[in-house]
Amino acid sequence: MAEFLSRRDIDFLLFDWLGVDDLVKHERFAEHSRETFDAVLDLSAAIAGKCFAPHNKTCDQSAPSVGADGTVVLIDEIKDALDTFGEAGLMAGAFDEALGGMGLPTVVAQASMTFFRAANPSITSYAFLTVGNANLLVEYGTDEQIDTWVRPMLEGRFFGTMCLSEPDAGSSLADITTRAVPAPDGTYRITGTKMWITGGDHELSENIVHLVLAKAPGGGPGVKGISLFIVPKFLPDGTRNDVALVSLNHKMGNHATTNALLNFGDGTHRPAEQPGAVGYLVGAEHHGLTYMFHMMNEARIAVGGQATATGYAGYLASLDYAKQRVQGRPVDAKRPGQPQVALIEHADVKRMLLAQKSYVEGALALGLYCWRLVDEERITTGAERDNAHLLLEVLTPIAKSWPAQWCLEANNLAIQVHGGYGYTKEFDVEQHYRDNRLNAIHEGTHGIHGLDLLGRKVVMQDGAGLTVLAERISHTIDAAMEFDDAVGHARALRRALDRLLEVTATLWSAGDIATTLANSTIYLEATGHVVIAWMWLEQMLACSGRDGDFYDGKRAAARYFFTYELPKVGPQFELLASLDRTTVEAAPSWF
Amino acid sequence: MAEFLSRRDIDFLLFDWLGVDDLVKHERFAEHSRETFDAVLDLSAAIAGKCFAPHNKTCDQSAPSVGADGTVVLIDEIKDALDTFGEAGLMAGAFDEALGGMGLPTVVAQASMTFFRAANPSITSYAFLTVGNANLLVEYGTDEQIDTWVRPMLEGRFFGTMCLSEPDAGSSLADITTRAVPAPDGTYRITGTKMWITGGDHELSENIVHLVLAKAPGGGPGVKGISLFIVPKFLPDGTRNDVALVSLNHKMGNHATTNALLNFGDGTHRPAEQPGAVGYLVGAEHHGLTYMFHMMNEARIAVGGQATATGYAGYLASLDYAKQRVQGRPVDAKRPGQPQVALIEHADVKRMLLAQKSYVEGALALGLYCWRLVDEERITTGAERDNAHLLLEVLTPIAKSWPAQWCLEANNLAIQVHGGYGYTKEFDVEQHYRDNRLNAIHEGTHGIHGLDLLGRKVVMQDGAGLTVLAERISHTIDAAMEFDDAVGHARALRRALDRLLEVTATLWSAGDIATTLANSTIYLEATGHVVIAWMWLEQMLACSGRDGDFYDGKRAAARYFFTYELPKVGPQFELLASLDRTTVEAAPSWF
Repeated sequence: MAEFLSRRDIDFLLFDWLGVDDLVKHERFAEHSRETFDAVLDLSAAIAGKCFAPHNKTCDQSAPSVGADGTVVLIDEIKDALDTFGEAGLMAGAFDEALGGMGLPTVVAQASMTFFRAANPSITSYAFLTVGNANLLVEYGTDEQIDTWVRPMLEGRFFGTMCLSEPDAGSSLADITTRAVPAPDGTYRITGTKMWITGGDHELSENIVHLVLAKAPGGGPGVKGISLFIVPKFLPDGTRNDVALVSLNHKMGNHATTNALLNFGDGTHRPAEQPGAVGYLVGAEHHGLTYMFHMMNEARIAVGGQATATGYAGYLASLDYAKQRVQGRPVDAKRPGQPQVALIEHADVKRMLLAQKSYVEGALALGLYCWRLVDEERITTGAERDNAHLLLEVLTPIAKSWPAQWCLEANNLAIQVHGGYGYTKEFDVEQHYRDNRLNAIHEGTHGIHGLDLLGRKVVMQDGAGLTVLAERISHTIDAAMEFDDAVGHARALRRALDRLLEVTATLWSAGDIATTLANSTIYLEATGHVVIAWMWLEQMLACSGRDGDFYDGKRAAARYFFTYELPKVGPQFELLASLDRTTVEAAPSWF
Repeated sequence: MAEFLSRRDIDFLLFDWLGVDDLVKHERFAEHSRETFDAVLDLSAAIAGKCFAPHNKTCDQSAPSVGADGTVVLIDEIKDALDTFGEAGLMAGAFDEALGGMGLPTVVAQASMTFFRAANPSITSYAFLTVGNANLLVEYGTDEQIDTWVRPMLEGRFFGTMCLSEPDAGSSLADITTRAVPAPDGTYRITGTKMWITGGDHELSENIVHLVLAKAPGGGPGVKGISLFIVPKFLPDGTRNDVALVSLNHKMGNHATTNALLNFGDGTHRPAEQPGAVGYLVGAEHHGLTYMFHMMNEARIAVGGQATATGYAGYLASLDYAKQRVQGRPVDAKRPGQPQVALIEHADVKRMLLAQKSYVEGALALGLYCWRLVDEERITTGAERDNAHLLLEVLTPIAKSWPAQWCLEANNLAIQVHGGYGYTKEFDVEQHYRDNRLNAIHEGTHGIHGLDLLGRKVVMQDGAGLTVLAERISHTIDAAMEFDDAVGHARALRRALDRLLEVTATLWSAGDIATTLANSTIYLEATGHVVIAWMWLEQMLACSGRDGDFYDGKRAAARYFFTYELPKVGPQFELLASLDRTTVEAAPSWF
């Protein structure tokens, strides 16, 4: 089996680039050291390699089903892997020690998660949703809610979900119809149907903690009326709550992750002989969407991380294949009879490997940079904190969407490197491609994130988020101007950044929101390429003055990105600057 | 079930654009008329709709297996569909009446095949390989071979395959090791292993006619020593030939098409108690690869056709969904409470539909244009014939690769339009995506076609092929300059064409073949976009002066292509013109 993630790259990004070991200077992480960080990364790599990676294909071949007794049937390896993960304390990596956590910086905990995501993304989804669910409750739940629901989640005994979508309200949350009615005992009774619920039902954990968006009486119309509830599968006294599995979705990939249609309060179970599922309000009524965004923002970066890790695993698999498989001769071969060479000797194969490397290592850098901002936000104050928050807001749609698009393209190229073998189930890369295709959809499609970036993030607080981004990129450019091997890239990035700022202003000067937002997905793609180019320039700086294959490889991938990828933004910005209305003007009857 | 192909579009392309009804003026097609063409299209649409489309998902869910008796197990619907196809005479559509064919122009016969490809590509592969096999034998086989093998194939009783690849020689045909030894009776005895054999074994037909590349004694090294043999599963006397199924490949998609590893002459069967599989030489010894290219070139355009048709089916499925599914509100909605709208009302959804439309209708136009050239080559003489041949040579790598890349992207967008539903097996689009992924691999990967186009096709006969292409494109541009709504597109295409010619010259001036060919895949992509832009300008001309939704839709798709797609060639040509050596210089040890 090929390696699924490069520990060397993780170390480079965390320590040589992001200076994560410096975080221990802050009192919050004072108990930690480079040694404890290394230990958790070693542990994660070992468990992922031993308990997650070997079952990735088995999971794919054994999609979940509903048994005769109505429970979800999954292969035993999934529970074993997650039990090992939980018992190692990894569910609680970044949580306070008071909650039984390791008190790790988020960036270290998430780097350690990357090993699991690369080894077996569809098992790992249970863990990442549980962590996100617990984070939300730590932020907004009561002490009692934390004791009742968070502690068992951090121990790996309960798992968490997020329940937003409904059959008639996917991206359109304003239209959800799930209702919450206050009960005399201070709880609520929830009635409605939720779909696309990842980890929505299974027998992997003692309990499932659903976080459910529902409308309680008295809320305004649209998203304003939405409140957030804890609706557990089992109530604290062990009674079955009225959460019923209707069906599982059968998907192209990600087979080990159950994805369910759930009924709340349909009468399948009747806790205390009353109708409705018992729900516990989180925070205040009618503020549910704000709370949910806490989890959703984290989940969005995590989805980008799944995409990145799956792309990374495919890259390494195709690299391994390209080094082993002997086929064809160099185009400048002098004699027809000379021996064949390994695939990796061919320029077009190197192009496909460099492309993958530039996508997956660029995306990994962005993901870790974002998690580092989560830490920054926590340990800084005042303007520094505000800036970290703003930057994270702007980067989140990119950190979610860019890897979902380009690390899927990496998986596409990994198949291509394998030729016909890549299309067969004998190798792993076709599974990566199917698994990764999900990531452009869940936690908001590309289209939603395009609207979020252009319609909200770059204009909020009078464009403060975009200003912070531009300042940080400029800072990198200025530093890179000092290095001969980076100066050309720095200039190219400067031009692209200037163009981004110009084009943003032009779009918002259109005076017509439909025209401004008509090509927001293209805006998302182009901004994403600028941001990843920045990540590559940052990596160039971190490599500077260092020799050896690893650093030469980083420089080659940066060169690839600046030569083959960044120039793609040229026509994209031109299209955006023209305020083109091709799509707006196309009539449905023309199709 | 959504429509899978637009008959209106087929009619537009064949009759309004390509003037295929004019072909009946030629004596070869004098028996035909617009009515007979319509009749075969009607018949094809009806059979495809009735016998092919309803089983597309069933085929996907029932991948072939090897039964206890060693035979291939397929669901009954596949044989029923192919029997109906054969009994309707469709296997022989473009063959001479003397052979029992309909004597149709190739372009009409292939347009009729498009219905089957769109309805159920993995069943249709058996037919397209059989037709290609028969075409090769009609061209190079003896009368006896035609009577023995071709006639039953055209009746739909025998199916054909092409056997090129071996476990250690995929794209590298010079390295095949299958051997042919002459036997005293004039036949040969074949020994070796062939893999990736589409339709390699099954019980769908009375016999399977394998066309096998093998090395006979006395040939030179490399591809020069290769000869071509008919190696049937059953000999004319009904004896089992020594062709043994070793295993079936299990694939990501295209499940109804068996794909086999076959042993020839391993002793499983011993015809006439002699070792080796009996083979009949086609044409002269050591010229096998030339003959095989006759079938391969046809197969390449057909693979582009499969990709196109699968893209087309996905486009129509997502269009249907976008019209039905109500979700979200316009970005310029005045009140939050106003009713939700159909997906197709959103600009970003229209973008995804226009993109798909421009890819699949552009690719369909190119495919039919190529088949029209096959007819042109047959019914013309002298310079006209040479030009048709040259143009077809240049266009073949594009007609294969462009649809494989962009109609797969169409399938990707079709999933995206469906949101989460698109990722489930409840809808068809995830299957399209998996099925279509094959087409960038078989009959030569993108990389192989990039080398073919830049390394061979545009420089053969001192660049005569590229000159013919440029002349034809220029002719279209000149005509388009007369029309107000096309003049902007015409100018853009002129610039792109000029750039293509300049860049081709620059690449070949590098003086170093490794540098010239380093980015041949990028050259293939860019040239493909220029060619498809030409196809759209041609369609604009065919629409000119016509009103109505259909023509407005064509104009909108053309506008999309010229606005969003053609500009992508700018940075690609810049990269090529710079003779960039990023890939050549990357050392394997850096990865």
